[in-house]
Amino acid sequence: MMMLTKLVSLFSTKNKFASLSSIPLFLSPSLITRLQMESSYTASSHSSSSSSQSSKLLFRQLFEKESSTYTYLLADVSHPDRPALLIDPVDKTVDRDLSVVQDLGLKLIYAMNTHVHADHVTGTGIIKSKVPSVKSVISKASGSKADMLIEPGEKIHFGNLFLEVRATPGHTLGCVTYVTGDGPDQPQPRMAFTGDALLIRGCGRTDFQGGSSEQLYNSVHSKIFTLPKETLIYPAHDYRGFTVSTVGEEKLYNPRLTKDLETYKSIMKNLNLPYPKMIDIAVPANLVCGLQDETPKA
Amino acid sequence: MMMLTKLVSLFSTKNKFASLSSIPLFLSPSLITRLQMESSYTASSHSSSSSSQSSKLLFRQLFEKESSTYTYLLADVSHPDRPALLIDPVDKTVDRDLSVVQDLGLKLIYAMNTHVHADHVTGTGIIKSKVPSVKSVISKASGSKADMLIEPGEKIHFGNLFLEVRATPGHTLGCVTYVTGDGPDQPQPRMAFTGDALLIRGCGRTDFQGGSSEQLYNSVHSKIFTLPKETLIYPAHDYRGFTVSTVGEEKLYNPRLTKDLETYKSIMKNLNLPYPKMIDIAVPANLVCGLQDETPKA
Repeated sequence: MMMLTKLVSLFSTKNKFASLSSIPLFLSPSLITRLQMESSYTASSHSSSSSSQSSKLLFRQLFEKESSTYTYLLADVSHPDRPALLIDPVDKTVDRDLSVVQDLGLKLIYAMNTHVHADHVTGTGIIKSKVPSVKSVISKASGSKADMLIEPGEKIHFGNLFLEVRATPGHTLGCVTYVTGDGPDQPQPRMAFTGDALLIRGCGRTDFQGGSSEQLYNSVHSKIFTLPKETLIYPAHDYRGFTVSTVGEEKLYNPRLTKDLETYKSIMKNLNLPYPKMIDIAVPANLVCGLQDETPKA
Repeated sequence: MMMLTKLVSLFSTKNKFASLSSIPLFLSPSLITRLQMESSYTASSHSSSSSSQSSKLLFRQLFEKESSTYTYLLADVSHPDRPALLIDPVDKTVDRDLSVVQDLGLKLIYAMNTHVHADHVTGTGIIKSKVPSVKSVISKASGSKADMLIEPGEKIHFGNLFLEVRATPGHTLGCVTYVTGDGPDQPQPRMAFTGDALLIRGCGRTDFQGGSSEQLYNSVHSKIFTLPKETLIYPAHDYRGFTVSTVGEEKLYNPRLTKDLETYKSIMKNLNLPYPKMIDIAVPANLVCGLQDETPKA
Protein backbone atom coordinates (compact mmCIF):
# COMPACT_ATOMS: atom_id res chain seq x y z
CA MET A 1 0.00 0.00 0.00
CA MET A 2 2.78 2.37 0.94
CA MET A 3 4.41 1.75 -2.45
CA LEU A 4 1.19 2.47 -4.33
CA THR A 5 0.63 5.59 -2.27
CA LYS A 6 4.10 6.91 -2.98
CA LEU A 7 3.91 6.02 -6.66
CA VAL A 8 0.55 7.72 -7.14
CA SER A 9 1.56 10.77 -5.15
CA LEU A 10 4.79 11.11 -7.08
CA PHE A 11 2.87 11.75 -10.26
CA SER A 12 -0.24 13.51 -9.05
CA THR A 13 0.10 15.20 -5.70
CA LYS A 14 2.19 18.26 -6.54
CA ASN A 15 0.26 19.02 -9.70
CA LYS A 16 -3.11 18.50 -8.10
CA PHE A 17 -2.42 20.51 -4.96
CA ALA A 18 0.13 23.17 -5.90
CA SER A 19 -2.38 25.45 -7.57
CA LEU A 20 -4.41 25.94 -4.38
CA SER A 21 -1.67 27.76 -2.50
CA SER A 22 -1.93 31.38 -3.54
CA ILE A 23 -5.49 32.54 -3.08
CA PRO A 24 -5.63 35.61 -0.81
CA LEU A 25 -7.89 35.32 2.22
CA PHE A 26 -9.53 38.13 4.20
CA LEU A 27 -11.01 37.57 7.64
CA SER A 28 -13.01 40.32 9.33
CA PRO A 29 -11.98 41.22 12.92
CA SER A 30 -15.47 40.13 14.06
CA LEU A 31 -14.91 36.67 12.56
CA ILE A 32 -11.50 36.35 14.17
CA THR A 33 -13.08 37.29 17.52
CA ARG A 34 -15.85 34.77 17.01
CA LEU A 35 -13.39 32.00 16.11
CA GLN A 36 -11.33 32.87 19.17
CA MET A 37 -14.35 32.75 21.47
CA GLU A 38 -16.10 29.63 20.26
CA SER A 39 -12.95 27.72 19.50
CA SER A 40 -12.54 27.19 23.22
CA TYR A 41 -15.08 24.43 22.69
CA THR A 42 -14.00 23.12 19.31
CA ALA A 43 -11.19 20.95 18.07
CA SER A 44 -11.76 22.34 14.61
CA SER A 45 -13.71 25.47 13.76
CA HIS A 46 -16.40 24.65 11.27
CA SER A 47 -18.58 27.72 10.84
CA SER A 48 -20.46 29.38 8.10
CA SER A 49 -23.41 31.71 7.81
CA SER A 50 -24.87 34.00 5.23
CA SER A 51 -27.45 35.45 7.62
CA SER A 52 -27.67 36.68 11.19
CA GLN A 53 -29.00 33.19 12.06
CA SER A 54 -25.54 31.67 12.54
CA SER A 55 -24.80 28.07 13.46
CA LYS A 56 -21.64 26.88 15.15
CA LEU A 57 -20.44 23.31 15.37
CA LEU A 58 -18.52 22.06 18.36
CA PHE A 59 -16.61 18.94 17.37
CA ARG A 60 -14.56 16.44 19.37
CA GLN A 61 -12.99 13.17 18.23
CA LEU A 62 -12.54 10.52 20.96
CA PHE A 63 -10.67 7.19 20.75
CA GLU A 64 -11.27 3.79 22.40
CA LYS A 65 -7.95 1.98 22.28
CA GLU A 66 -8.98 -1.67 22.70
CA SER A 67 -11.22 -1.75 19.61
CA SER A 68 -9.53 1.27 17.94
CA THR A 69 -12.95 2.93 17.72
CA TYR A 70 -13.55 6.64 17.18
CA THR A 71 -16.52 8.22 18.91
CA TYR A 72 -17.58 11.67 17.69
CA LEU A 73 -19.21 14.44 19.69
CA LEU A 74 -21.06 17.14 17.75
CA ALA A 75 -23.05 20.04 19.19
CA ASP A 76 -24.62 23.31 18.04
CA VAL A 77 -23.09 25.79 20.51
CA SER A 78 -24.87 28.73 18.87
CA HIS A 79 -28.20 27.30 20.07
CA PRO A 80 -29.21 28.27 23.64
CA ASP A 81 -29.65 24.58 24.60
CA ARG A 82 -26.25 23.58 23.15
CA PRO A 83 -27.81 20.30 21.87
CA ALA A 84 -25.30 17.50 21.25
CA LEU A 85 -25.07 14.00 19.78
CA LEU A 86 -22.58 11.15 19.99
CA ILE A 87 -21.80 8.95 16.98
CA ASP A 88 -20.59 5.38 17.70
CA PRO A 89 -20.06 5.56 21.48
CA VAL A 90 -18.38 2.51 23.09
CA ASP A 91 -19.67 0.90 26.31
CA LYS A 92 -16.24 1.11 28.01
CA THR A 93 -15.83 4.85 27.47
CA VAL A 94 -19.32 6.13 28.29
CA ASP A 95 -18.20 7.83 31.53
CA ARG A 96 -15.42 9.67 29.68
CA ASP A 97 -17.81 10.78 26.93
CA LEU A 98 -20.50 11.99 29.35
CA SER A 99 -17.91 13.91 31.39
CA VAL A 100 -16.81 15.82 28.27
CA VAL A 101 -20.47 16.55 27.44
CA GLN A 102 -20.91 17.92 30.96
CA ASP A 103 -17.62 19.86 31.06
CA LEU A 104 -18.56 21.65 27.83
CA GLY A 105 -22.06 22.51 29.07
CA LEU A 106 -23.86 20.49 26.37
CA LYS A 107 -27.25 18.76 26.34
CA LEU A 108 -26.89 15.26 24.88
CA ILE A 109 -30.00 14.40 22.83
CA TYR A 110 -28.91 11.52 20.53
CA ALA A 111 -26.63 8.46 20.89
CA MET A 112 -26.24 7.17 17.35
CA ASN A 113 -24.66 4.21 15.60
CA THR A 114 -23.49 3.97 12.00
CA HIS A 115 -24.20 0.21 12.06
CA VAL A 116 -24.39 -2.93 14.23
CA HIS A 117 -20.76 -3.21 15.36
CA ALA A 118 -19.16 -6.65 15.59
CA ASP A 119 -15.98 -5.63 17.44
CA HIS A 120 -17.32 -3.77 20.50
CA VAL A 121 -20.55 -3.17 22.41
CA THR A 122 -22.17 0.19 21.68
CA GLY A 123 -22.39 2.70 24.52
CA THR A 124 -25.93 3.76 23.67
CA GLY A 125 -27.55 1.42 26.20
CA ILE A 126 -25.44 2.64 29.14
CA ILE A 127 -25.86 6.25 28.03
CA LYS A 128 -29.66 5.86 28.07
CA SER A 129 -29.53 4.28 31.52
CA LYS A 130 -27.53 7.29 32.80
CA VAL A 131 -29.34 9.98 30.78
CA PRO A 132 -32.87 8.67 30.11
CA SER A 133 -33.82 11.62 27.87
CA VAL A 134 -31.22 10.56 25.26
CA LYS A 135 -32.65 8.82 22.18
CA SER A 136 -30.79 5.90 20.57
CA VAL A 137 -30.54 6.08 16.77
CA ILE A 138 -29.67 3.44 14.15
CA SER A 139 -30.83 2.58 10.63
CA LYS A 140 -34.10 0.71 10.07
CA ALA A 141 -32.18 -1.52 7.61
CA SER A 142 -29.92 -2.73 10.45
CA GLY A 143 -32.83 -4.76 11.88
CA SER A 144 -32.03 -3.34 15.32
CA LYS A 145 -34.24 -1.95 18.05
CA ALA A 146 -33.75 1.73 18.92
CA ASP A 147 -35.71 4.85 19.83
CA MET A 148 -35.29 6.21 16.29
CA LEU A 149 -34.93 3.93 13.26
CA ILE A 150 -33.69 6.21 10.50
CA GLU A 151 -33.91 5.77 6.74
CA PRO A 152 -31.83 7.11 3.82
CA GLY A 153 -32.46 10.78 3.05
CA GLU A 154 -33.68 11.60 6.56
CA LYS A 155 -32.22 14.56 8.39
CA ILE A 156 -31.24 14.40 12.06
CA HIS A 157 -31.47 17.89 13.53
CA PHE A 158 -29.55 19.17 16.57
CA GLY A 159 -30.19 22.88 17.12
CA ASN A 160 -29.77 24.66 13.78
CA LEU A 161 -27.43 21.97 12.46
CA PHE A 162 -28.32 18.60 10.97
CA LEU A 163 -26.87 15.33 9.72
CA GLU A 164 -28.03 13.75 6.48
CA VAL A 165 -28.42 9.94 6.38
CA ARG A 166 -26.86 8.10 3.43
CA ALA A 167 -27.26 4.32 2.99
CA THR A 168 -23.78 2.79 2.56
CA PRO A 169 -24.33 -0.99 2.91
CA GLY A 170 -21.71 -3.62 2.13
CA HIS A 171 -19.80 -4.00 5.42
CA THR A 172 -23.20 -4.79 6.94
CA LEU A 173 -26.59 -4.60 5.26
CA GLY A 174 -27.63 -1.72 7.53
CA CYS A 175 -24.58 0.58 7.39
CA VAL A 176 -25.21 4.30 7.01
CA THR A 177 -22.93 7.32 6.64
CA TYR A 178 -23.96 10.49 8.48
CA VAL A 179 -23.00 13.64 6.56
CA THR A 180 -23.19 17.18 7.94
CA GLY A 181 -25.78 19.34 6.22
CA ASP A 182 -25.45 21.06 2.89
CA GLY A 183 -26.34 24.74 3.15
CA PRO A 184 -25.05 28.23 3.92
CA ASP A 185 -25.63 27.85 7.67
CA GLN A 186 -24.13 24.35 7.92
CA PRO A 187 -20.44 23.45 8.60
CA GLN A 188 -17.94 23.96 5.81
CA PRO A 189 -16.27 21.76 4.76
CA ARG A 190 -18.83 19.00 5.12
CA MET A 191 -17.94 16.06 7.37
CA ALA A 192 -18.79 12.42 6.61
CA PHE A 193 -18.98 9.89 9.47
CA THR A 194 -18.50 6.76 7.42
CA GLY A 195 -18.56 4.03 10.08
CA ASP A 196 -16.81 0.94 8.64
CA ALA A 197 -17.85 1.60 5.03
CA LEU A 198 -14.87 3.81 4.22
CA LEU A 199 -11.79 3.74 6.46
CA ILE A 200 -8.67 5.88 5.99
CA ARG A 201 -6.74 4.13 3.18
CA GLY A 202 -8.99 1.11 3.72
CA CYS A 203 -12.54 -0.15 4.23
CA GLY A 204 -14.52 -2.53 6.46
CA ARG A 205 -14.54 -6.30 5.87
CA THR A 206 -17.46 -7.70 3.87
CA ASP A 207 -17.62 -11.33 4.99
CA PHE A 208 -20.16 -11.11 7.86
CA GLN A 209 -23.54 -9.57 8.76
CA GLY A 210 -24.96 -9.48 5.23
CA GLY A 211 -21.75 -7.95 3.87
CA SER A 212 -21.10 -7.73 0.14
CA SER A 213 -17.92 -6.42 -1.49
CA GLU A 214 -19.77 -5.35 -4.65
CA GLN A 215 -22.38 -3.51 -2.58
CA LEU A 216 -19.70 -1.77 -0.47
CA TYR A 217 -17.78 -0.70 -3.58
CA ASN A 218 -20.94 0.79 -5.08
CA SER A 219 -21.94 2.43 -1.76
CA VAL A 220 -18.59 4.22 -1.38
CA HIS A 221 -18.42 5.30 -5.02
CA SER A 222 -22.04 6.49 -5.25
CA LYS A 223 -22.68 7.88 -1.75
CA ILE A 224 -19.28 9.04 -0.41
CA PHE A 225 -16.94 9.68 -3.35
CA THR A 226 -19.66 11.87 -4.89
CA LEU A 227 -19.30 14.36 -2.01
CA PRO A 228 -17.04 17.43 -2.55
CA LYS A 229 -13.36 16.39 -2.46
CA GLU A 230 -12.69 18.62 0.54
CA THR A 231 -15.30 16.69 2.61
CA LEU A 232 -13.63 15.42 5.80
CA ILE A 233 -13.75 11.65 6.32
CA TYR A 234 -14.18 10.54 9.95
CA PRO A 235 -14.33 6.72 10.14
CA ALA A 236 -15.48 4.48 13.04
CA HIS A 237 -11.99 2.97 13.33
CA ASP A 238 -8.37 3.52 12.53
CA TYR A 239 -5.65 0.99 13.34
CA ARG A 240 -2.59 3.01 12.27
CA GLY A 241 -3.09 6.29 14.11
CA PHE A 242 -4.69 8.39 11.39
CA THR A 243 -7.42 10.71 12.69
CA VAL A 244 -8.96 12.15 9.53
CA SER A 245 -8.84 12.04 5.73
CA THR A 246 -10.78 13.66 2.90
CA VAL A 247 -12.83 12.43 -0.06
CA GLY A 248 -10.11 13.86 -2.32
CA GLU A 249 -7.36 11.90 -0.56
CA GLU A 250 -9.26 8.59 -0.53
CA LYS A 251 -10.18 8.93 -4.20
CA LEU A 252 -6.45 9.26 -4.92
CA TYR A 253 -4.84 6.96 -2.36
CA ASN A 254 -7.28 4.37 -1.01
CA PRO A 255 -5.44 1.15 -1.92
CA ARG A 256 -8.68 -0.83 -2.34
CA LEU A 257 -11.36 1.56 -3.56
CA THR A 258 -9.21 3.16 -6.26
CA LYS A 259 -9.20 -0.23 -8.03
CA ASP A 260 -11.81 -1.43 -10.54
CA LEU A 261 -14.71 -3.47 -9.11
CA GLU A 262 -13.35 -6.89 -10.07
CA THR A 263 -9.90 -6.22 -8.58
CA TYR A 264 -11.56 -4.84 -5.44
CA LYS A 265 -13.80 -7.92 -5.09
CA SER A 266 -10.74 -10.15 -5.43
CA ILE A 267 -8.84 -8.13 -2.77
CA MET A 268 -11.76 -8.42 -0.35
CA LYS A 269 -12.26 -12.12 -1.08
CA ASN A 270 -8.64 -12.90 -0.26
CA LEU A 271 -8.18 -10.89 2.97
CA ASN A 272 -8.28 -14.11 5.03
CA LEU A 273 -9.18 -12.21 8.21
CA PRO A 274 -9.72 -14.11 11.48
CA TYR A 275 -13.22 -14.64 12.90
CA PRO A 276 -14.12 -11.39 14.78
CA LYS A 277 -13.39 -12.25 18.43
CA MET A 278 -16.15 -10.04 19.84
CA ILE A 279 -18.85 -10.76 17.24
CA ASP A 280 -20.84 -13.32 19.26
CA ILE A 281 -21.09 -10.96 22.21
CA ALA A 282 -21.24 -7.63 20.41
CA VAL A 283 -23.81 -8.28 17.67
CA PRO A 284 -26.66 -9.57 19.88
CA ALA A 285 -26.08 -6.66 22.29
CA ASN A 286 -25.83 -4.09 19.51
CA LEU A 287 -29.02 -5.32 17.82
CA VAL A 288 -30.79 -3.80 20.83
CA CYS A 289 -28.41 -0.79 20.97
CA GLY A 290 -26.63 -2.24 24.02
CA LEU A 291 -29.85 -2.63 26.02
CA GLN A 292 -29.78 -6.39 26.62
CA ASP A 293 -32.15 -6.37 29.57
CA GLU A 294 -34.88 -3.93 28.68
CA THR A 295 -37.08 -3.13 25.73
CA PRO A 296 -36.26 0.18 24.06
CA LYS A 297 -39.03 2.81 24.00
CA ALA A 298 -39.67 2.53 20.28
CA MET B 1 -11.02 12.85 38.96
CA MET B 2 -14.32 12.21 37.24
CA MET B 3 -16.15 13.23 40.43
CA LEU B 4 -14.20 16.47 40.70
CA THR B 5 -14.84 17.19 37.03
CA LYS B 6 -18.56 16.67 37.39
CA LEU B 7 -18.76 18.65 40.60
CA VAL B 8 -16.86 21.62 39.18
CA SER B 9 -18.79 21.57 35.91
CA LEU B 10 -22.09 21.37 37.73
CA PHE B 11 -21.51 24.79 39.25
CA SER B 12 -19.47 26.56 36.60
CA THR B 13 -19.90 25.20 33.10
CA LYS B 14 -23.33 26.50 32.13
CA ASN B 15 -22.72 29.97 33.50
CA LYS B 16 -19.26 30.29 32.02
CA PHE B 17 -20.14 29.03 28.57
CA ALA B 18 -23.78 29.85 27.96
CA SER B 19 -23.18 33.51 27.12
CA LEU B 20 -21.01 32.71 24.09
CA SER B 21 -23.76 31.13 22.05
CA SER B 22 -25.54 33.94 20.29
CA ILE B 23 -23.02 36.09 18.44
CA PRO B 24 -23.95 36.36 14.75
CA LEU B 25 -21.24 35.38 12.27
CA PHE B 26 -20.88 36.53 8.66
CA LEU B 27 -18.58 34.75 6.20
CA SER B 28 -17.92 36.17 2.75
CA PRO B 29 -18.51 33.79 -0.21
CA SER B 30 -14.79 34.10 -1.03
CA LEU B 31 -13.85 32.91 2.46
CA ILE B 32 -16.27 29.99 2.29
CA THR B 33 -14.74 29.03 -1.07
CA ARG B 34 -11.26 29.26 0.38
CA LEU B 35 -12.15 27.14 3.42
CA GLN B 36 -13.75 24.57 1.12
CA MET B 37 -10.70 24.40 -1.13
CA GLU B 38 -7.91 24.30 1.42
CA SER B 39 -9.79 22.21 3.93
CA SER B 40 -9.33 19.25 1.63
CA TYR B 41 -5.88 19.07 3.16
CA THR B 42 -6.64 20.09 6.72
CA ALA B 43 -8.20 18.36 9.66
CA SER B 44 -9.12 21.74 11.09
CA SER B 45 -9.16 25.05 9.27
CA HIS B 46 -7.03 27.59 11.08
CA SER B 47 -6.79 30.65 8.87
CA SER B 48 -6.50 34.34 9.32
CA SER B 49 -5.19 37.27 7.38
CA SER B 50 -5.71 40.99 7.29
CA SER B 51 -3.68 41.46 4.12
CA SER B 52 -3.29 39.85 0.70
CA GLN B 53 -0.29 37.99 2.19
CA SER B 54 -2.39 35.13 3.53
CA SER B 55 -1.12 32.13 5.47
CA LYS B 56 -2.88 28.81 5.73
CA LEU B 57 -2.10 26.05 8.20
CA LEU B 58 -2.48 22.41 7.26
CA PHE B 59 -2.77 20.37 10.45
CA ARG B 60 -2.85 16.63 11.11
CA GLN B 61 -2.81 14.77 14.41
CA LEU B 62 -1.30 11.25 14.30
CA PHE B 63 -1.30 8.58 17.05
CA GLU B 64 1.22 5.87 18.01
CA LYS B 65 -0.73 3.28 19.98
CA GLU B 66 2.04 1.45 21.90
CA SER B 67 3.34 4.58 23.69
CA SER B 68 0.07 6.55 23.25
CA THR B 69 2.09 9.31 21.58
CA TYR B 70 0.66 12.07 19.39
CA THR B 71 2.75 13.27 16.47
CA TYR B 72 1.70 16.54 14.84
CA LEU B 73 2.13 17.57 11.23
CA LEU B 74 1.95 21.29 10.44
CA ALA B 75 2.51 22.96 7.07
CA ASP B 76 2.00 26.33 5.40
CA VAL B 77 0.01 25.34 2.30
CA SER B 78 -0.30 28.95 1.15
CA HIS B 79 3.48 29.00 0.55
CA PRO B 80 4.60 27.68 -2.88
CA ASP B 81 7.01 25.18 -1.20
CA ARG B 82 4.30 23.91 1.21
CA PRO B 83 6.97 23.67 3.98
CA ALA B 84 6.09 21.26 6.81
CA LEU B 85 7.31 20.15 10.23
CA LEU B 86 6.65 17.18 12.50
CA ILE B 87 6.45 17.55 16.29
CA ASP B 88 7.33 14.46 18.39
CA PRO B 89 7.59 11.81 15.66
CA VAL B 90 8.00 8.19 16.88
CA ASP B 91 10.56 5.78 15.36
CA LYS B 92 7.92 3.08 14.73
CA THR B 93 5.61 5.35 12.70
CA VAL B 94 8.10 7.24 10.54
CA ASP B 95 6.99 5.51 7.31
CA ARG B 96 3.36 6.41 8.01
CA ASP B 97 4.26 10.02 8.75
CA LEU B 98 6.44 10.42 5.65
CA SER B 99 3.73 8.87 3.44
CA VAL B 100 1.22 11.49 4.66
CA VAL B 101 3.77 14.24 3.99
CA GLN B 102 4.20 12.91 0.46
CA ASP B 103 0.47 12.32 -0.21
CA LEU B 104 -0.28 15.93 0.74
CA GLY B 105 2.51 17.32 -1.45
CA LEU B 106 4.48 18.84 1.44
CA LYS B 107 8.19 19.56 1.89
CA LEU B 108 9.30 18.38 5.35
CA ILE B 109 11.93 20.78 6.75
CA TYR B 110 11.94 20.15 10.54
CA ALA B 111 11.59 17.07 12.78
CA MET B 112 11.15 18.50 16.27
CA ASN B 113 10.90 17.20 19.82
CA THR B 114 9.28 18.88 22.81
CA HIS B 115 11.74 17.07 25.11
CA VAL B 116 13.91 13.97 25.61
CA HIS B 117 11.22 11.28 25.74
CA ALA B 118 11.61 8.39 28.19
CA ASP B 119 8.79 6.18 26.85
CA HIS B 120 9.66 5.85 23.15
CA VAL B 121 12.49 6.50 20.69
CA THR B 122 12.06 9.66 18.65
CA GLY B 123 11.60 9.31 14.89
CA THR B 124 13.89 12.21 14.07
CA GLY B 125 16.94 10.01 13.45
CA ILE B 126 15.17 7.71 10.98
CA ILE B 127 13.50 10.69 9.29
CA LYS B 128 16.93 12.32 8.73
CA SER B 129 18.31 9.07 7.31
CA LYS B 130 15.40 8.93 4.81
CA VAL B 131 15.18 12.68 4.11
CA PRO B 132 18.68 14.12 4.73
CA SER B 133 17.57 17.74 4.17
CA VAL B 134 15.35 17.60 7.30
CA LYS B 135 16.77 19.36 10.37
CA SER B 136 16.29 17.88 13.85
CA VAL B 137 15.19 20.38 16.51
CA ILE B 138 15.21 20.21 20.32
CA SER B 139 15.87 22.62 23.19
CA LYS B 140 19.44 23.55 24.15
CA ALA B 141 18.40 22.98 27.78
CA SER B 142 17.71 19.31 27.01
CA GLY B 143 21.46 18.64 26.74
CA SER B 144 20.79 16.76 23.48
CA LYS B 145 22.54 16.83 20.14
CA ALA B 146 20.49 18.10 17.18
CA ASP B 147 20.80 20.21 14.05
CA MET B 148 19.04 23.10 15.78
CA LEU B 149 19.23 23.65 19.55
CA ILE B 150 16.49 26.16 20.27
CA GLU B 151 16.09 28.52 23.22
CA PRO B 152 13.07 30.18 24.87
CA GLY B 153 11.64 33.07 22.84
CA GLU B 154 13.01 31.81 19.53
CA LYS B 155 10.69 31.55 16.54
CA ILE B 156 10.72 28.54 14.23
CA HIS B 157 9.49 29.65 10.80
CA PHE B 158 7.88 27.41 8.18
CA GLY B 159 6.72 29.45 5.21
CA ASN B 160 4.80 32.47 6.49
CA LEU B 161 3.85 30.67 9.71
CA PHE B 162 5.95 30.21 12.84
CA LEU B 163 6.07 28.47 16.21
CA GLU B 164 7.15 30.30 19.34
CA VAL B 165 9.35 28.41 21.85
CA ARG B 166 8.31 28.56 25.52
CA ALA B 167 10.40 26.91 28.25
CA THR B 168 8.13 24.63 30.31
CA PRO B 169 10.54 22.54 32.45
CA GLY B 170 9.45 20.27 35.31
CA HIS B 171 8.70 16.95 33.59
CA THR B 172 12.28 17.17 32.31
CA LEU B 173 14.70 20.08 32.69
CA GLY B 174 14.64 20.70 28.93
CA CYS B 175 10.91 20.57 28.13
CA VAL B 176 9.53 23.23 25.82
CA THR B 177 6.04 24.06 24.55
CA TYR B 178 5.72 25.11 20.90
CA VAL B 179 2.96 27.70 20.40
CA THR B 180 1.67 28.87 17.01
CA GLY B 181 2.45 32.51 16.28
CA ASP B 182 0.61 35.53 17.60
CA GLY B 183 -0.39 37.88 14.79
CA PRO B 184 -3.01 38.71 12.17
CA ASP B 185 -1.54 36.27 9.62
CA GLN B 186 -1.07 33.40 12.08
CA PRO B 187 -3.59 30.64 12.95
CA GLN B 188 -6.53 31.55 15.14
CA PRO B 189 -7.10 30.16 17.70
CA ARG B 190 -3.50 29.62 18.75
CA MET B 191 -2.34 26.03 19.27
CA ALA B 192 0.02 24.91 22.06
CA PHE B 193 2.03 21.69 21.63
CA THR B 194 2.72 21.04 25.27
CA GLY B 195 4.69 17.78 25.19
CA ASP B 196 4.43 16.12 28.62
CA ALA B 197 4.23 19.39 30.56
CA LEU B 198 0.45 19.71 30.30
CA LEU B 199 -1.65 16.68 29.40
CA ILE B 200 -5.44 16.66 28.95
CA ARG B 201 -6.80 16.59 32.54
CA GLY B 202 -3.29 15.64 33.69
CA CYS B 203 0.44 16.34 33.41
CA GLY B 204 3.74 14.51 32.97
CA ARG B 205 5.48 12.77 35.91
CA THR B 206 8.22 14.75 37.65
CA ASP B 207 10.38 12.05 39.23
CA PHE B 208 13.01 11.53 36.49
CA GLN B 209 15.32 13.45 34.12
CA GLY B 210 15.71 16.52 36.29
CA GLY B 211 11.98 16.71 36.93
CA SER B 212 10.54 19.00 39.60
CA SER B 213 6.87 19.26 40.55
CA GLU B 214 7.24 22.85 41.72
CA GLN B 215 8.97 23.81 38.48
CA LEU B 216 6.29 22.07 36.36
CA TYR B 217 3.49 23.78 38.28
CA ASN B 218 5.12 27.17 37.71
CA SER B 219 5.85 26.38 34.04
CA VAL B 220 2.23 25.50 33.27
CA HIS B 221 0.78 28.44 35.20
CA SER B 222 3.21 31.05 33.83
CA LYS B 223 3.79 29.81 30.24
CA ILE B 224 0.63 27.91 29.23
CA PHE B 225 -2.28 29.05 31.40
CA THR B 226 -1.38 32.68 30.49
CA LEU B 227 -2.31 31.98 26.84
CA PRO B 228 -5.84 32.96 25.68
CA LYS B 229 -8.43 30.50 27.08
CA GLU B 230 -9.45 29.41 23.58
CA THR B 231 -5.87 28.24 22.83
CA LEU B 232 -5.99 24.59 21.72
CA ILE B 233 -3.92 22.17 23.82
CA TYR B 234 -2.25 19.37 21.86
CA PRO B 235 -0.20 17.15 24.23
CA ALA B 236 2.47 14.55 23.40
CA HIS B 237 0.33 11.79 24.91
CA ASP B 238 -3.15 10.84 25.89
CA TYR B 239 -4.02 7.53 27.54
CA ARG B 240 -7.83 7.87 27.61
CA GLY B 241 -8.63 8.75 24.01
CA PHE B 242 -8.90 12.53 24.24
CA THR B 243 -7.46 14.30 21.20
CA VAL B 244 -7.52 17.98 22.19
CA SER B 245 -8.37 20.38 25.02
CA THR B 246 -8.14 24.12 25.56
CA VAL B 247 -6.42 26.40 28.07
CA GLY B 248 -9.90 27.36 29.33
CA GLU B 249 -10.88 23.75 29.94
CA GLU B 250 -7.65 22.79 31.70
CA LYS B 251 -7.80 25.88 33.94
CA LEU B 252 -11.27 24.71 35.02
CA TYR B 253 -10.96 20.92 35.03
CA ASN B 254 -7.33 19.76 35.27
CA PRO B 255 -7.50 17.64 38.46
CA ARG B 256 -3.87 18.42 39.40
CA LEU B 257 -3.03 21.89 38.12
CA THR B 258 -6.21 23.53 39.43
CA LYS B 259 -4.92 22.79 42.97
CA ASP B 260 -2.65 25.07 45.02
CA LEU B 261 1.10 24.41 44.75
CA GLU B 262 1.44 22.44 47.99
CA THR B 263 -1.51 20.14 47.19
CA TYR B 264 -0.11 19.65 43.68
CA LYS B 265 3.37 18.78 45.01
CA SER B 266 1.81 16.25 47.37
CA ILE B 267 -0.24 14.68 44.52
CA MET B 268 2.89 14.35 42.36
CA LYS B 269 4.98 13.00 45.24
CA ASN B 270 2.47 10.23 45.92
CA LEU B 271 1.76 8.98 42.37
CA ASN B 272 3.89 5.86 43.00
CA LEU B 273 4.37 5.25 39.28
CA PRO B 274 6.44 2.28 38.07
CA TYR B 275 9.97 2.76 36.68
CA PRO B 276 9.50 3.77 32.98
CA LYS B 277 10.07 0.51 31.08
CA MET B 278 11.62 2.18 28.02
CA ILE B 279 13.72 4.81 29.81
CA ASP B 280 17.08 3.02 29.63
CA ILE B 281 16.72 2.52 25.88
CA ALA B 282 14.85 5.67 24.95
CA VAL B 283 16.76 8.37 26.82
CA PRO B 284 20.26 7.58 25.46
CA ALA B 285 18.82 7.34 21.94
CA ASN B 286 16.78 10.52 22.28
CA LEU B 287 19.73 12.50 23.65
CA VAL B 288 21.11 12.25 20.12
CA CYS B 289 17.65 12.67 18.52
CA GLY B 290 17.49 8.98 17.68
CA LEU B 291 20.81 8.99 15.81
CA GLN B 292 22.72 6.46 17.89
CA ASP B 293 25.33 5.67 15.24
CA GLU B 294 26.26 8.98 13.65
CA THR B 295 27.06 12.50 14.72
CA PRO B 296 24.38 15.05 13.82
CA LYS B 297 25.42 17.88 11.49
CA ALA B 298 25.41 20.52 14.20
